[in-house]
Amino acid sequence: MDATRPLDALNVSRNKRVIVELKNGRRYVGNLKAFDIHINTVLDDAEEYIDGEMKRKLGTVFIRGDTITIISPQ
Amino acid sequence: MDATRPLDALNVSRNKRVIVELKNGRRYVGNLKAFDIHINTVLDDAEEYIDGEMKRKLGTVFIRGDTITIISPQ
Amino acid sequence: MDATRPLDALNVSRNKRVIVELKNGRRYVGNLKAFDIHINTVLDDAEEYIDGEMKRKLGTVFIRGDTITIISPQ
Amino acid sequence: MDATRPLDALNVSRNKRVIVELKNGRRYVGNLKAFDIHINTVLDDAEEYIDGEMKRKLGTVFIRGDTITIISPQ
Amino acid sequence: MDATRPLDALNVSRNKRVIVELKNGRRYVGNLKAFDIHINTVLDDAEEYIDGEMKRKLGTVFIRGDTITIISPQ
Amino acid sequence: MDATRPLDALNVSRNKRVIVELKNGRRYVGNLKAFDIHINTVLDDAEEYIDGEMKRKLGTVFIRGDTITIISPQ
Amino acid sequence: MDATRPLDALNVSRNKRVIVELKNGRRYVGNLKAFDIHINTVLDDAEEYIDGEMKRKLGTVFIRGDTITIISPQ
Repeated sequence: MDATRPLDALNVSRNKRVIVELKNGRRYVGNLKAFDIHINTVLDDAEEYIDGEMKRKLGTVFIRGDTITIISPQ
Repeated sequence: MDATRPLDALNVSRNKRVIVELKNGRRYVGNLKAFDIHINTVLDDAEEYIDGEMKRKLGTVFIRGDTITIISPQ
Repeated sequence: MDATRPLDALNVSRNKRVIVELKNGRRYVGNLKAFDIHINTVLDDAEEYIDGEMKRKLGTVFIRGDTITIISPQ
Repeated sequence: MDATRPLDALNVSRNKRVIVELKNGRRYVGNLKAFDIHINTVLDDAEEYIDGEMKRKLGTVFIRGDTITIISPQ
Repeated sequence: MDATRPLDALNVSRNKRVIVELKNGRRYVGNLKAFDIHINTVLDDAEEYIDGEMKRKLGTVFIRGDTITIISPQ
Repeated sequence: MDATRPLDALNVSRNKRVIVELKNGRRYVGNLKAFDIHINTVLDDAEEYIDGEMKRKLGTVFIRGDTITIISPQ
Repeated sequence: MDATRPLDALNVSRNKRVIVELKNGRRYVGNLKAFDIHINTVLDDAEEYIDGEMKRKLGTVFIRGDTITIISPQ
């Protein structure tokens, strides 16, 4: 990610593997397929982690933006 | 789901079975009938799960968008 | 409820008996008289349930939308 | 209250005694003098109840809308 | 306070002593100097109460509206 | 601070020492350099207090408005 | 940081090392690459601290603005 606006920075990670962390402590790791200005985010080949442990393979997952704390390239 | 905007991705699941998870930990599984930009969502043939256990069959359920964390195809 | 937009789906339940659940765990059962885009909702002949037990008959009740998690036909 | 829009329904209770319940569990009972689209609400001759017990007579009270869960005619 | 819109009702208390209560349980008592549509509020000669006990004299205090539950003339 | 609009009142404290209190209980004391309509606030020569005890000197600090409860001249 | 608007003040720290603190208590330290009016923020060469202890090197991290409490130059 390298850009002057935050969403441009997210765009650099499109189709790459990212970590998405939620306010409830859950973590999703997957390929960043889509996001919008609300930071609503879609991951592909996603895995869900609770307390650092992989709990579920989800395939595709839509994550509501207001529940997200951080997004980081894996 | 495969699209460049998150709501397009949700649209791919229309009339298919999805899992909707809420901030209060509840999970609803049903056929995705409708959603809007607030992620207000309507499921058909919905079942409610609490702590992983099926508690109620709800038929149709309207879920207020701001209470949702993730939506994923079942 | 059967419609492509969530509020259309709610509209199918107008004047019918619905269950409204709140973020604080309370549940209201009544006839759906009115709602708006914020999901502010008015029920008639409403009963309040706390922990699954009927606590009060309220007649009419106005429920602020942002406190609602789900609405479902009874 | 009888109307097709939630605020019309509230309007039927204007100058009548209503119960207003808050997210923090407090309850105010008073004459409904004013409200707006945010559900900011003004009661006259208001009494405050905590855990079902009358704690204070407040005269007039302005209640910020986003703290309200339900409003019901007494 | 006597008016058909909530902010008109607040206006009746301008330059008079009011009680402002917050979501975190704190209470401020002071002269109502200013407020806006977000209910951001400024009090003069303000005192802070925690658990019913006066803790600090604050002189002027700006209170962010979204943290307020009720405002009432003292 | 003396003005009819809350932000005018804040403006009177510009370049003066203020106390900013947060929803998480932390308190920042510093020179008020800037603020906007969201009450996003910048302090200079700021000190952070936790449980009434000075914990850090921060120099400049940007405080997101929605985390603020009150601002008061020191 | 020295400016009359909060975002101008943030801009002075662009490409410099800042501390970003979150509502959940986590702290990120990194080079401030980007931010927007929602205070969505992107850091480079970021490190995550939990309870004051460095837990992870994250490289780039996108932080959703509404989860931030303060930003301060390191």
